[in-house]
Amino acid sequence: MTRADRWMLPDGIAEILPADAVRIETLRRRLLDLYHSWGYELIIPPMVEFTDSLLIGMGRDIDLSTFKVTDQLSGRTLGIRADITPQAARIDAHSFPRSGANRLCYAGQVLHARPRTAMGSRAPIQIGAELYGVESLQADIEVISLMLETLLLAGVEQIHLDLGHVAIYRNLAEAAGLDGEQQRELFALLQSKASADVRRWVEDNVADPQAADWLRALPRLAGGRDCLARARELFAGAPGALQAALADLQRTAELLAQRYPAVELFFDLSEVRGYDYETGLVFAAYTPGHGQALANGGRYNGIGAVFGRERAATGFSTDLVALNTLGTSAESLSGAILAPVPDESSGDVESLWRVVGQLRRAGEVVIGALPDGDEGETLARCDRELVREDGDWVVKPRG
Amino acid sequence: MTRADRWMLPDGIAEILPADAVRIETLRRRLLDLYHSWGYELIIPPMVEFTDSLLIGMGRDIDLSTFKVTDQLSGRTLGIRADITPQAARIDAHSFPRSGANRLCYAGQVLHARPRTAMGSRAPIQIGAELYGVESLQADIEVISLMLETLLLAGVEQIHLDLGHVAIYRNLAEAAGLDGEQQRELFALLQSKASADVRRWVEDNVADPQAADWLRALPRLAGGRDCLARARELFAGAPGALQAALADLQRTAELLAQRYPAVELFFDLSEVRGYDYETGLVFAAYTPGHGQALANGGRYNGIGAVFGRERAATGFSTDLVALNTLGTSAESLSGAILAPVPDESSGDVESLWRVVGQLRRAGEVVIGALPDGDEGETLARCDRELVREDGDWVVKPRG
Repeated sequence: MTRADRWMLPDGIAEILPADAVRIETLRRRLLDLYHSWGYELIIPPMVEFTDSLLIGMGRDIDLSTFKVTDQLSGRTLGIRADITPQAARIDAHSFPRSGANRLCYAGQVLHARPRTAMGSRAPIQIGAELYGVESLQADIEVISLMLETLLLAGVEQIHLDLGHVAIYRNLAEAAGLDGEQQRELFALLQSKASADVRRWVEDNVADPQAADWLRALPRLAGGRDCLARARELFAGAPGALQAALADLQRTAELLAQRYPAVELFFDLSEVRGYDYETGLVFAAYTPGHGQALANGGRYNGIGAVFGRERAATGFSTDLVALNTLGTSAESLSGAILAPVPDESSGDVESLWRVVGQLRRAGEVVIGALPDGDEGETLARCDRELVREDGDWVVKPRG
Repeated sequence: MTRADRWMLPDGIAEILPADAVRIETLRRRLLDLYHSWGYELIIPPMVEFTDSLLIGMGRDIDLSTFKVTDQLSGRTLGIRADITPQAARIDAHSFPRSGANRLCYAGQVLHARPRTAMGSRAPIQIGAELYGVESLQADIEVISLMLETLLLAGVEQIHLDLGHVAIYRNLAEAAGLDGEQQRELFALLQSKASADVRRWVEDNVADPQAADWLRALPRLAGGRDCLARARELFAGAPGALQAALADLQRTAELLAQRYPAVELFFDLSEVRGYDYETGLVFAAYTPGHGQALANGGRYNGIGAVFGRERAATGFSTDLVALNTLGTSAESLSGAILAPVPDESSGDVESLWRVVGQLRRAGEVVIGALPDGDEGETLARCDRELVREDGDWVVKPRG
């Protein structure tokens, strides 16, 4: 951040200047083209909606991070979107309903009233894809694959993929007879990865010794693929839905290992991020040296219910601004051509205009000199210039 | 607007569904590439800023149409941008200062608290270009040319260009000795094109008979190029700055007629749109059957003063959503290829993944069938499919 930014822009809200803007725009186009090639169709949802549409049971976090204003025309409350996913869900449910699969993608600025992390951005450019209407595990695998393709295309070299499944905690909590309030309490302890606190809380609240054992084991069930094997053994007597979740994780891991052998796979069976609304497989991608998840997503079936149409749903998203900071793709911009101020008394005006147009259409950057432009930086961008030679305009290196 | 939109979205705020989204995205890319080829550099300003930065003397209209929220982190008032131009001016003045010419371009959603016209959109996607640091008329002509190129590229077939110059009214009002309040009163009458009211107001307020004559004549000085000739005659004794403005209009018209012979030129010497902040040549482009200006702009020198750096400035902008409704560029999307669910017991999984990846990288849309996708509309998009033939995957028409 430059000095000017600090005093001119709100904390966590950055403007993007040309060098970065051009890289972000290039990445945006490549990613949208990628999603298009997978059959995902572009939508452009608005910057604001009624909060009734934006805050549709996707958790308290999103409510707190949504700026709200009153609509002068309706008197109702509008929210500035903090996440595009609920907008995509609304569009799938109502505006663009399809009986079967509906693949949607988007890219756009979102805004957080509060940063999600201490020094975090409040103005990410969210880009992502959502797949509605399909329950099967293949849909999750498609979406995870597209997320990994996104990071590969952005030039992220080392990818760690974390996989979890909300059904594991959910089923253990039910087996232990925990009510909603208790589930939330334990959830908070698991989030903070405080094993000792989890152990104590379970001793105090869970009577059934088998269920208590299972819950106490959860924080330790994180790591490489061996952790799935340990879980299968440990949860041999657990509810069928939990076994099914483990099998889904296993199958996903196998297929992803085949497709992306360079991606490191991790499992975290106590992973309950998005527990408020996520319903199945959840996933997040990391890279060394970057603390926050680069991209994440998961299954959130039933999200369209508030719009009158309950749909299976899975998807992911990432932040173009954050991806750009990893910036392995330093594009070297080729220089521009300077066109002179034409001599209006000669026939130059017309011929120069024609030649400049041809060069621009051929992909060159041509900057027209202006009589009083004092174009210091502009001249520095131009490594060539148009000069009149024997009646023709020719491009020459600038000395 | 579909029925769902009407009850789900605020008035004047639309979401853009795939068919339009793809056309808008294509147009956006082509226009940004056009601006790039003219040497304009992309910036991505944020969706919100402190109102102190957004409302920098660009008139009361922009203040009234800006949604405001309180920033929880600073306690200061933020505005959701209703116009990107002030953001570009701030960036030119502070964040990306250049000694000479600075050419910037942008594209992004903006939001109006109130629609500018009765049924107007409150959520345009503004795209435009601004040229800072150059006083000369050539800068205005460059910007007007780029505006016309924008409309031509968007496929607008008949373009009417209206040209005006704020210095004409400003100088006549000063010659008549009008104070600020009086200038504003007469301005309002001129805006509403009420000649009889203008006549009456001038009789009541202007003592000098020559100045009164000039002001009374203003509403009639609109039309084709002959109106410039009439004005030169009528204003022969008027202040030099007014004569210079007429000469600028004349020169601009000549050069534009040469460059764009198909564009119809009109003049309106009483045009005072943007009188609050515009300082020189003003321009707007229309097309038959579309009541609002498609694009407009003008000179607004001195805009950076509030940021500590007064700069010459001229620029234009337009709305991608409105341009798209003129939509002469109906792109026919080619069909997609359906990839089957692979038989996991065979070696198909890997070979199919490889072939699908190749097709996608070659620019094809390949949709992976999902076991439970009931893919009605998805199947309808696919005019071809991948089938296994003699051990190879081949693309065949779908019957």
